[in-house]
Amino acid sequence: MSNDRLIYLPLGGAGEIGMNAYVYGYGAPGKERLIVVDLGVAFPDMDSTPGVDLIFADTTWLQKNKDRIEAVLITHAHEDHVGAVGHLYEKLGAPKIYTRAFTANIARGKLSEYGFSDDVVTTVSAWPETIKAGPFTIGFLPISHSIPESSGLVIDTPEGRVIHTGDFKLDLNPLVGEAFDEALWADVSKDGVRALICDSTNVFSPKAGRSESELGKPIEELIGSLKGMVVATTFASNVARVKTLAEAGDRAGRSICLLGRAMKKMLDASLATGVVKDFPTVVSPEEARDIPRENLMLIVTGSQGERRAASAQLARGKYNGFTMKEGDTFLFSSKTIPGNEKGVIAIMNAFSEQGVDVVDDNGGLYHVSGHANRPDLLKMQEVVRPQMVIPMHGEHRHLREHARLAEANGRAAVIAVNGMMLDLSGNAPKVAEYIETGRTYLDGSVQIGAMDGIVRDRIRMALNGHVVVTLVLDEQDEPLGEPWCDLKGLPETGKSNAPVVDVLEADLGQFLGRANAKTLRDDDKLEEALRRIVRNSSQEEVGKKPEVTVVISRLSA
Amino acid sequence: MSNDRLIYLPLGGAGEIGMNAYVYGYGAPGKERLIVVDLGVAFPDMDSTPGVDLIFADTTWLQKNKDRIEAVLITHAHEDHVGAVGHLYEKLGAPKIYTRAFTANIARGKLSEYGFSDDVVTTVSAWPETIKAGPFTIGFLPISHSIPESSGLVIDTPEGRVIHTGDFKLDLNPLVGEAFDEALWADVSKDGVRALICDSTNVFSPKAGRSESELGKPIEELIGSLKGMVVATTFASNVARVKTLAEAGDRAGRSICLLGRAMKKMLDASLATGVVKDFPTVVSPEEARDIPRENLMLIVTGSQGERRAASAQLARGKYNGFTMKEGDTFLFSSKTIPGNEKGVIAIMNAFSEQGVDVVDDNGGLYHVSGHANRPDLLKMQEVVRPQMVIPMHGEHRHLREHARLAEANGRAAVIAVNGMMLDLSGNAPKVAEYIETGRTYLDGSVQIGAMDGIVRDRIRMALNGHVVVTLVLDEQDEPLGEPWCDLKGLPETGKSNAPVVDVLEADLGQFLGRANAKTLRDDDKLEEALRRIVRNSSQEEVGKKPEVTVVISRLSA
Repeated sequence: MSNDRLIYLPLGGAGEIGMNAYVYGYGAPGKERLIVVDLGVAFPDMDSTPGVDLIFADTTWLQKNKDRIEAVLITHAHEDHVGAVGHLYEKLGAPKIYTRAFTANIARGKLSEYGFSDDVVTTVSAWPETIKAGPFTIGFLPISHSIPESSGLVIDTPEGRVIHTGDFKLDLNPLVGEAFDEALWADVSKDGVRALICDSTNVFSPKAGRSESELGKPIEELIGSLKGMVVATTFASNVARVKTLAEAGDRAGRSICLLGRAMKKMLDASLATGVVKDFPTVVSPEEARDIPRENLMLIVTGSQGERRAASAQLARGKYNGFTMKEGDTFLFSSKTIPGNEKGVIAIMNAFSEQGVDVVDDNGGLYHVSGHANRPDLLKMQEVVRPQMVIPMHGEHRHLREHARLAEANGRAAVIAVNGMMLDLSGNAPKVAEYIETGRTYLDGSVQIGAMDGIVRDRIRMALNGHVVVTLVLDEQDEPLGEPWCDLKGLPETGKSNAPVVDVLEADLGQFLGRANAKTLRDDDKLEEALRRIVRNSSQEEVGKKPEVTVVISRLSA
Repeated sequence: MSNDRLIYLPLGGAGEIGMNAYVYGYGAPGKERLIVVDLGVAFPDMDSTPGVDLIFADTTWLQKNKDRIEAVLITHAHEDHVGAVGHLYEKLGAPKIYTRAFTANIARGKLSEYGFSDDVVTTVSAWPETIKAGPFTIGFLPISHSIPESSGLVIDTPEGRVIHTGDFKLDLNPLVGEAFDEALWADVSKDGVRALICDSTNVFSPKAGRSESELGKPIEELIGSLKGMVVATTFASNVARVKTLAEAGDRAGRSICLLGRAMKKMLDASLATGVVKDFPTVVSPEEARDIPRENLMLIVTGSQGERRAASAQLARGKYNGFTMKEGDTFLFSSKTIPGNEKGVIAIMNAFSEQGVDVVDDNGGLYHVSGHANRPDLLKMQEVVRPQMVIPMHGEHRHLREHARLAEANGRAAVIAVNGMMLDLSGNAPKVAEYIETGRTYLDGSVQIGAMDGIVRDRIRMALNGHVVVTLVLDEQDEPLGEPWCDLKGLPETGKSNAPVVDVLEADLGQFLGRANAKTLRDDDKLEEALRRIVRNSSQEEVGKKPEVTVVISRLSA
């Protein structure tokens, strides 16, 4: 009897919303042939990752086992699903990459930044087309989401069929991209589905999700009622929304101008791949600048308050020659992702100061989510009728709630977080192994580890300031002159009303005057002593213990 | 004819939610006698104020004019209204401080931390008692809020009556503290009110606010239904809520234990001043540890995810001997203030990992706001019927919306942001002057300016890392050995796969080998050249331009 097994291993996305990377494998334990679903990024913040550019799942395990990778499959073109494909392609042994046309267009752009040609991505048509990848046969099953051509994956394995939903909502009229086709999903599932690996993002949203198509009328009414220039923002990748906004502006007699690099890229990809066939005429920024503002509508990037995007730059005064004025209106056709509130609110206040009217999603009137809500998740379970539900794409609380929801409806469910390898071969999933995982950072041009102390040091300097002590010792290990201090990020004067630098240097000088030869000869001891003095004296003077770097220069004898 | 005037000058709170500080004055221009309403703090964050402890309004103008201050009046005991009173008392020339009993209790605690005795605060009874302060007569008019004894101020001036609402909601049954008394407010306003200076926090909330008293039943039902230990959090200062939670736990047969310093302080102040007369028996943490968890309810601090508060510590594993377990429940009887989402969500996920059920405010079932919503603001205007409305206590967008709301209802309104001095003497308010204002930071034990570069340097080190270059020059201005680099917050290796420090030192060494005597003699030139090399080489190696400190030691000839 074979001891081959079917495994599922999330490396990213199960315990956070972001940096999705899921592995399936089949074969003898430790020798499973692997497929990877999605290679996404997460975004840094000042609290935990200052200075970092992008966050990736730690794929060390995958890299060690790159010879076992049969294929990478990308469900859709959101950054948290495709953003790492360029960075990781070579590290994973240049695997075959499969995805549908629109996603392929975006993925190829990312790969070309790393010098890889278009043909490393193979374009796949929608189900019933399938591809073979080792022991797996995989098809891309269309589903609606907030980006064109999002797909669930039908993964046929020797242990039966598994369905990986990707990100989805149950939209019967998504305007761009395919609608949710219940009959198709039911048909695919009719012979039994071993496991449904399912998006958990909106498990806490109690009401059924609403269709993208509900927004056109209210947005049209809004824009029709406005007088000055209208500027609207949404995710550029939400092509249906961009189109809805553009059509509403067009019908209100306004010229449409798209601003922000991503807007153009996404629209170009949509037109090139045919997911969008008609789009209102757009004018260039140069043309737009000559159009009276009451006849103009800008659609811009930066719905999440990103500092460098068009919205934030407009809020700070100017973008691409455009400025906002009293009487203009700025529409957020979007919802603020938790953690981005301060950036978005800062933009709203800046516009308020300029006399610009800000309109937010207005309780859902001008925005709908791209993810399945609680009743939609139940509906998906009823359509697919899987043997077990494995929640993914969620923080721990989402995964847990989703598992409970499934169990409350009589289905087996298991919470699998990043690094937890499940064996799905038996009747119930069991934990097979724990894989070391975590996050790695793209920092400038270098990949660094989350745990190697670099970012920790930055955070400490930000919280405590940094003092550099320089000491020169002569050939006899005697201090040559006084020690110097340089302070960065610390107050100039403290408790004793003298410059802090003078106080520290005096304290250090006093110590050195008394220090014995043994201490002066020993770099480590000396460094430790000087550090302690700086930290204690600073605490006394300014109420803070700074980070300290001690530089000891010895003149060679 | 006298040219005396009535002025209004917000120094904090008008353009942000936090650090409230409002000035009223009457007299000849530049010689007005002044009263100050509230002296609050704002709280720092990692994005803009890393390492800062507290944020105060810049009161330089007030300090310059401290001889003109007749009194400080505190409307209520929230940190953003009373938090700076200890820190600023002496700087403002030790003015008389007036407030009601509960707030006085809290204010005295803050003043005692700075060594001031209880009698610097004078306790005032509610309206109709008034106090005289120069040209002003002031009474404390009870109003409901999320803390006991919040008060509006009735400020009688030679130019008529002004009403400063303080923070408020229109609660007819707030459980603790006085209900909103419409008849009283109408009576006070019946002879005409020149200006209503009014809380703007919830101007974007479309529905009338709900009463604190609506929460008792749902909270009681919730707690009655739970099996394991119950832990609930809310603002400690929301004494009514703490009491509601405690009573619900008590009725469910649970022993109540309060955890977190602020919980005890607020309950003690409430009992000492009589605003709370009966409170369920509480047990000490020591006693609580012996009580079976299904019979226990903890009420803890940290509803906003504050890292050091009880909630966050419980989420990390342990607080005061207590740990959470599978089957326990944690209730947020609170709403997350924008900007605090990440901290709160981190706690929710940590509890989820422990198997603890987390219950949030459930769409308002377990929490109501302490501020007046849009219809309540209109109601207040109808009751007071002021000649003009001046919105306060809000970000710019709140102030603007509030002013528009008032104007739409036929009242004069003006947006006055921090530093904008209004002359309220005429029929319409006019801007009299702009006062230099802003924020100052309490950083450790030192007060620093927001603009003096200290915090900016910290942010830069956090984003870019810090390189220290040390160079020793001999008596002939020749480099003694090689220059040294110390890196903090930067990767160890970069593009050339060699240690970054080696690459930088080699580049610096090469430069010094070629540098002419003139450069080597000139500290500024040398420093600038070394800095440029480090920044460019780092950019090349790791894709980042770090902060650079150059330390040049010259051996004296």
